[in-house]
Amino acid sequence: MQIVYKSEPQRGLLWQQWLAQHAPDIQLHLWPEIGIAEEVEVLVAWQPPADLMTVFPNLKLLISVGAGADQFDLTQLPASLPVVRMIEPGLTQGMVEYVTFAVLGLHRDMPRYFQQQRAAQWQTHPIKPPAQRRVGVMGLGELGQAAIQQLASLGFDCAGWSRSPRQIPGVQCFAGNHQLADFLARTDILICLLPLTPETRGLLNAQLFAQLPRGASLVQAGRGQQLVQDDLLSALESGQLSAAVLDVTAPEPLPPEHPLWRHPAIWLTPHIASTTQAETALAALLENLRRWERGESLRGVIDRQQGY
Amino acid sequence: MQIVYKSEPQRGLLWQQWLAQHAPDIQLHLWPEIGIAEEVEVLVAWQPPADLMTVFPNLKLLISVGAGADQFDLTQLPASLPVVRMIEPGLTQGMVEYVTFAVLGLHRDMPRYFQQQRAAQWQTHPIKPPAQRRVGVMGLGELGQAAIQQLASLGFDCAGWSRSPRQIPGVQCFAGNHQLADFLARTDILICLLPLTPETRGLLNAQLFAQLPRGASLVQAGRGQQLVQDDLLSALESGQLSAAVLDVTAPEPLPPEHPLWRHPAIWLTPHIASTTQAETALAALLENLRRWERGESLRGVIDRQQGY
Repeated sequence: MQIVYKSEPQRGLLWQQWLAQHAPDIQLHLWPEIGIAEEVEVLVAWQPPADLMTVFPNLKLLISVGAGADQFDLTQLPASLPVVRMIEPGLTQGMVEYVTFAVLGLHRDMPRYFQQQRAAQWQTHPIKPPAQRRVGVMGLGELGQAAIQQLASLGFDCAGWSRSPRQIPGVQCFAGNHQLADFLARTDILICLLPLTPETRGLLNAQLFAQLPRGASLVQAGRGQQLVQDDLLSALESGQLSAAVLDVTAPEPLPPEHPLWRHPAIWLTPHIASTTQAETALAALLENLRRWERGESLRGVIDRQQGY
Repeated sequence: MQIVYKSEPQRGLLWQQWLAQHAPDIQLHLWPEIGIAEEVEVLVAWQPPADLMTVFPNLKLLISVGAGADQFDLTQLPASLPVVRMIEPGLTQGMVEYVTFAVLGLHRDMPRYFQQQRAAQWQTHPIKPPAQRRVGVMGLGELGQAAIQQLASLGFDCAGWSRSPRQIPGVQCFAGNHQLADFLARTDILICLLPLTPETRGLLNAQLFAQLPRGASLVQAGRGQQLVQDDLLSALESGQLSAAVLDVTAPEPLPPEHPLWRHPAIWLTPHIASTTQAETALAALLENLRRWERGESLRGVIDRQQGY
């Protein structure tokens, strides 16, 4: 099997070496090296080349190295080409760590304590038990479910929201636009792990923030284009929101002069919540390639209608 | 039973009202109100009054409202007076939250990302899987064991150290001075949850830091007097330590001009990692009082020799 890899080079080199040793029937070329273009059946990439089907006329499978495939312009890809995103435990673990860190920080008033530290101010504030802290996760795929599981084990009062109905044992699940208001009304800490689609673009806006309890906070680890950044700044200004932890922005990198960098109630990280981990992702990739060879269904296939 | 409570007034009021309703045989007086001094058998306090046995000549039991009893001058108390500290789930939960927050923050390079945010600098750093992050907890009592359990569930490579040998399933436990060097040599993130005793005073010093791997970090949620603060600053300066999360200092409150407030690699919180929670602590207090009435052994009795 001839595969081309077009993403972070160091990971590609690791994969190439491992496959050469343990799965020599799979030949991984590291872009821009592509071997014989006509023989390439699979592309593993963050961004495919322009004119994808001209470059690889016999391409049969496109695999995203990321948790999403929103970086692909699906309208430019043949409808018959299966597109698969990455589902792998390292990526899930990273997101669980980031979300747990952010929720514990917000739960325990850390943005306020860090501001106090800068002012050399020793002042304590009451602690709320986690059972009285209502955490709400938007997006109940692989990452959302893993995050809820961890947060529930810490004692938080967790609920979830997704586009189509889901059932998670012990967790109140809301679905669709008609249940969004109820979900928001019971959420003190809102976590966005949604994929980027036309419906989620700009979803985190003033109207949504207004439906949260006053003083709620936000963890945004979805995609930058989902958040109306000016609306966030206004909500922090008015006190409707008390704090926000952002891992994604629009654009990325965020320009140095942008006010999000400097707001005292915002923690901003440069899209590091979770990245595909070379070792665990290789196992997931290999599993999907073997399924594909056997004609079995793949993990993480993108539904072209839903866009995720 | 006549009890005097001398600590945070709001919690005392809550306890008084609850006991009056549900355990009317226990009468809780809120200091400075003490009822008939000769009838008082139990004092529940953060700080006992001077001349304790003169104020309460028939005192039979002293209960600390905190996780430790190091605020008591044990040498000034009759050897026959049992001294008990607070063991209650709310206090444990708070510490688990704080330690988990701190360890995840250090594990995921957050002190560095927060410095980058202040410089409006978008730069990513590699992620390490938690199984490759060696966390070491000093102090394996109620709090230390609960913290290890949570950190192990997040996938960290956990070990523990205590004065006397302990066994925790699935966790490598070190004990005593002769095993301290081995414990430190395998610890990337060191967490101190030790009680304050003559042996632990000044224990976190340059000599100890030098035995950690270069670039290790520290979570100090024990007692302020255990840390030689100048040695911490030197270790951060030299790069022997990369970051520290401090919840306790000496003195408390830390004076505004102290350099610990301003070091960019230090997160400093004002002794808020964990506080006794009114509701859960009341249940624990009541349980101990009933045990005492029945002549049974109490939870959390201080060993006068060990001082904890």
